[in-house]
Amino acid sequence: MKLKPTIVRRIPRADAAVIARLGELGVASVHEAQGRTGLMRPYMRPIYPAAKAAGSALTISCHPGDNLMIHAAIEVCQPGDVLVVTTTSESTDGMFGDLLAVSARAHGVTALVIDAGIRDVTDLAAMDFPVWSKAISAQGTVKATPGSVNVTVICAGAIVRPGDVIVADMDGVVVVPRGDAAEVARLGAERVAKEEGTRERLRRGELGLDFYGLRARLTELGVQYIDEES
Amino acid sequence: MKLKPTIVRRIPRADAAVIARLGELGVASVHEAQGRTGLMRPYMRPIYPAAKAAGSALTISCHPGDNLMIHAAIEVCQPGDVLVVTTTSESTDGMFGDLLAVSARAHGVTALVIDAGIRDVTDLAAMDFPVWSKAISAQGTVKATPGSVNVTVICAGAIVRPGDVIVADMDGVVVVPRGDAAEVARLGAERVAKEEGTRERLRRGELGLDFYGLRARLTELGVQYIDEES
Amino acid sequence: MKLKPTIVRRIPRADAAVIARLGELGVASVHEAQGRTGLMRPYMRPIYPAAKAAGSALTISCHPGDNLMIHAAIEVCQPGDVLVVTTTSESTDGMFGDLLAVSARAHGVTALVIDAGIRDVTDLAAMDFPVWSKAISAQGTVKATPGSVNVTVICAGAIVRPGDVIVADMDGVVVVPRGDAAEVARLGAERVAKEEGTRERLRRGELGLDFYGLRARLTELGVQYIDEES
Amino acid sequence: MKLKPTIVRRIPRADAAVIARLGELGVASVHEAQGRTGLMRPYMRPIYPAAKAAGSALTISCHPGDNLMIHAAIEVCQPGDVLVVTTTSESTDGMFGDLLAVSARAHGVTALVIDAGIRDVTDLAAMDFPVWSKAISAQGTVKATPGSVNVTVICAGAIVRPGDVIVADMDGVVVVPRGDAAEVARLGAERVAKEEGTRERLRRGELGLDFYGLRARLTELGVQYIDEES
Amino acid sequence: MKLKPTIVRRIPRADAAVIARLGELGVASVHEAQGRTGLMRPYMRPIYPAAKAAGSALTISCHPGDNLMIHAAIEVCQPGDVLVVTTTSESTDGMFGDLLAVSARAHGVTALVIDAGIRDVTDLAAMDFPVWSKAISAQGTVKATPGSVNVTVICAGAIVRPGDVIVADMDGVVVVPRGDAAEVARLGAERVAKEEGTRERLRRGELGLDFYGLRARLTELGVQYIDEES
Amino acid sequence: MKLKPTIVRRIPRADAAVIARLGELGVASVHEAQGRTGLMRPYMRPIYPAAKAAGSALTISCHPGDNLMIHAAIEVCQPGDVLVVTTTSESTDGMFGDLLAVSARAHGVTALVIDAGIRDVTDLAAMDFPVWSKAISAQGTVKATPGSVNVTVICAGAIVRPGDVIVADMDGVVVVPRGDAAEVARLGAERVAKEEGTRERLRRGELGLDFYGLRARLTELGVQYIDEES
Repeated sequence: MKLKPTIVRRIPRADAAVIARLGELGVASVHEAQGRTGLMRPYMRPIYPAAKAAGSALTISCHPGDNLMIHAAIEVCQPGDVLVVTTTSESTDGMFGDLLAVSARAHGVTALVIDAGIRDVTDLAAMDFPVWSKAISAQGTVKATPGSVNVTVICAGAIVRPGDVIVADMDGVVVVPRGDAAEVARLGAERVAKEEGTRERLRRGELGLDFYGLRARLTELGVQYIDEES
Repeated sequence: MKLKPTIVRRIPRADAAVIARLGELGVASVHEAQGRTGLMRPYMRPIYPAAKAAGSALTISCHPGDNLMIHAAIEVCQPGDVLVVTTTSESTDGMFGDLLAVSARAHGVTALVIDAGIRDVTDLAAMDFPVWSKAISAQGTVKATPGSVNVTVICAGAIVRPGDVIVADMDGVVVVPRGDAAEVARLGAERVAKEEGTRERLRRGELGLDFYGLRARLTELGVQYIDEES
Repeated sequence: MKLKPTIVRRIPRADAAVIARLGELGVASVHEAQGRTGLMRPYMRPIYPAAKAAGSALTISCHPGDNLMIHAAIEVCQPGDVLVVTTTSESTDGMFGDLLAVSARAHGVTALVIDAGIRDVTDLAAMDFPVWSKAISAQGTVKATPGSVNVTVICAGAIVRPGDVIVADMDGVVVVPRGDAAEVARLGAERVAKEEGTRERLRRGELGLDFYGLRARLTELGVQYIDEES
Repeated sequence: MKLKPTIVRRIPRADAAVIARLGELGVASVHEAQGRTGLMRPYMRPIYPAAKAAGSALTISCHPGDNLMIHAAIEVCQPGDVLVVTTTSESTDGMFGDLLAVSARAHGVTALVIDAGIRDVTDLAAMDFPVWSKAISAQGTVKATPGSVNVTVICAGAIVRPGDVIVADMDGVVVVPRGDAAEVARLGAERVAKEEGTRERLRRGELGLDFYGLRARLTELGVQYIDEES
Repeated sequence: MKLKPTIVRRIPRADAAVIARLGELGVASVHEAQGRTGLMRPYMRPIYPAAKAAGSALTISCHPGDNLMIHAAIEVCQPGDVLVVTTTSESTDGMFGDLLAVSARAHGVTALVIDAGIRDVTDLAAMDFPVWSKAISAQGTVKATPGSVNVTVICAGAIVRPGDVIVADMDGVVVVPRGDAAEVARLGAERVAKEEGTRERLRRGELGLDFYGLRARLTELGVQYIDEES
Repeated sequence: MKLKPTIVRRIPRADAAVIARLGELGVASVHEAQGRTGLMRPYMRPIYPAAKAAGSALTISCHPGDNLMIHAAIEVCQPGDVLVVTTTSESTDGMFGDLLAVSARAHGVTALVIDAGIRDVTDLAAMDFPVWSKAISAQGTVKATPGSVNVTVICAGAIVRPGDVIVADMDGVVVVPRGDAAEVARLGAERVAKEEGTRERLRRGELGLDFYGLRARLTELGVQYIDEES
């Protein structure tokens, strides 16, 4: 039982090339490739269209309304990290703004995923610093209460371990366990390749009913066809 | 009592010219023209700005987390149809993505209205395939449970009968009963014409109080004017 | 006890130059400068990106689903006013649309803040009439029930007195008490100037931990550092 | 297209004995017996434990915050009716309290189902007048805006036609189309009888896996058994 | 502008007999008697049935997840006070439990109204210490961040000034401005007396349509009667 | 990466005496004793007052609207187990009712914690079978889609590993990692013993300000006392 708030300095990270490949696959394909696990709740939305990110999770657990631990986290980050911030109870406070973004970027952080609020969105968009958050709120925070950095957290309903791969785009945010990253990238690439063929056949008018062999299932499930409503 | 899941092959549709005219009127005008009925709940939002659609409702009732019946529906659609998807209990799962959009478009479907989630929004926006949904979620679905196609459904709080006219834009989604479509289009056009005159008078500074004759009502309701707060 | 619905004709307003300066500072800076008070709830969102406004609050209290008092309010507004509309219980109805926007603009109103719904958002965006609202809904309203204009209201969780300064941008909406406006503008300008220096130091890689002197606090709070998770 | 607000004086009703039998079956059994249709959303909760009701729906469509049409409805009700109240947009106002309950009861109304708020709950509980509502709120309403009585409405996500049978208990509220009532009562009784046998076998320890024949399905779906997590 | 957190030691209070009479009237009657103002949002619910309270508001503004100021407030309370707790942003944390209830009662506090969470509800119910809250949550809080006691606050959407009268029962919570208390009690008593007569007439079957003279209004509003749906 | 749905037959469990002691401590004390971790979200509510449970978690991950895996789980449970059910996306469907409760009890299950809906609440209360759920809904489910039993799940925002200890009462639900159970029970007992002394001192009127030594903190934080609002 770990009762003391803790900052872990060194974490393992996945291979950069693998992370890049996962980012290219995108959230929906990665989520499928790993057996439909690891997806954060759909309330996590990008603050501007076309936001896209992939990186290693640097996890941060904060008291609601208190961003002290985000400052502590920046010291232990590495280029390519994505900050993953959660609070011990629900909050929409604006825990992160343009000053923290400037600081985070100076240390190589490429994106933020936060199950709380952020502010200065105009500045963040101008910097092209991608953020996925639950809320936008100017409500300021204090720096008064301890928390932890680089421990296992739950963020928007998904377990995130330090060093897991975070993939985020317009469809949301998905977490890939570090040890599975290479295999998920491989399965995802297979899936995307296969989908290209499917897409082409569907484009030509082939029905999903035939392509996926669903006609028998409809019959087995007792679905009846009638010509028109009487 | 219809206990068996059912797919109805043929449905009546409104006149294409009438549908086009309703689309030009837009949601707010159509909603007013038909006595402020038929509006879906405001949580139904377009996935990209400037989305606009009008077409005949092809209705689909699915089990939550299961898109089997959307595949079945595409076989019975016709060019100009709008898919209207609802689930038997609330869900935000991503029941529709780019493959289904490619397939739907290949069969002439022009838009999707879904009281659940969708995914691949970047692809859908690139295709310019308009969607109004409750959520964006990469969460995948199964194809395991029966449902119905072209039966009366409730979607986001509105009754939709197969062949009703769906009009959707930035203001939301409204349903026009098929039999009323021509009359609503006529009333809507009258309304829009009349509003043009109103707009011009208001632009010149005439007050709504005078234009709508509301001064007497304020008095009758006991509203008092005072010059300034003491 | 004021039991009668009331329209107050004349309200005090803050100095136009002060209002303009508050608008330049933006919501987050103004909120900080006045001790983190006066912020509306984060569900208040602009209807289009890059919306920005600052003006004197002309307050309106309506019955839900009834916009009678907005019409009454336009008669008593002055150029530079921001309409602040609240309802006596929660509502998402579309109480304001393009006709009211045309009328409001003809009388000098520069923006709308409404704890309810609006409609005709395509038109409003085309007019570049900025709106912050809780919802977008085509649902029409009636003109049947009395309310008040220029009385103290609560809008989205914030107290607004007639003539208070409203500042709104992508971060939300903040209310500055009229009497504090000049002092808040001064404090905000100081804050922004100081932040510029902070930003530069953070950009060069100085840590918030050092800049804000937080290392001692972490120790005092019992936060422990470990090199890596065992 | 019916644009005028309308009060329908006479509606067909189901047989009283059938209604009573449906009430004894309860919500869950009736919902199952009619193919899992007609259930209102789960936010509809009874205002006191052990509330239970069954009767003919007398439907009422109101403007939010306005209970004028409830007064109009009481004149056309008959003993055994259940008032089913909906609003044209979402509201939690307290549209019904002890005075209306006294009046409704004097005319034979046995219960209220309302997709909005109610008040005076202590009095209603003391009268043993059962209510299912979305909210409890003291917020008063006006009597200013027209609506309709005994037209088809959507209440909490379910279609209700005048004279349909309403069954409500601790599990929620279900609507039985009037024409199906006798058949649903028959199917429900069969179901309950059959469940008694099932219950007995399960009580003795027989597994649902065996009773429902689910072992083969698990295998077919690829579910694997392992003895313990490695 | 008051930027420093402040504890006000002495506040004015309403007359005890007036407070008692307001408590007897109950929330719905008091809300009506003061022109339908001062009601908190309906999410404020009592933690056990039959809870009832009336007293002078001792207001407390806390940081979310921090109950330091509740401890500070108990020192300045007087017998008959009701603690009214709000947080600077939304929170459901359990800021108050049985220890604070024991302490508060020892100093004469009779109830708690809190726009956040509480815990130890079994103990609180056993003590018969009435609480109206937004949530029940065991989530503990810290004592790290300053706030204010006996300043004007917004609690659950209502303005509360120190010394205002709080009335709470099963219907919710209403705030009566201290200066209006006697007049509201008088108007409320008149209202209740008058309602007794109304109740009796409605019990005998007189219709609200006649009693309130609503028939003419229905006609004026264009409501049509038809005998039965064709 | 485990892509196949899996049922784990044997799981480790905590000592029965330790579990019983945790149950006596209750949710709030256990949550504190383990450093304020492991609490489920406050929307998890007991279906009847005075519900109380403690046991070993038997975890179940289901497709939304599908209770197949609950049936599979009952075969591998042991007396004293608490079923912990989650769904792969949010659902309120009634996945558990009186038949499943009879079956679960026949196999020794003592309670249910479910991040979804349940039904037959009157029967469950009559059986005194305690349940903590997100919703009550009669909506029936299918048995069509695979899932897992006794894998790590996230339930209402908390990580639950098979065999962890679940403690639930009126304050909510808390999860104690199996390996920490004895230590948490010991720390919790110490805490409760200490609180008894605190309670007595507070009952006699000692202030929390003095007892917890908070006066210095208020001063340090800049909180000012003033005698009365000017």
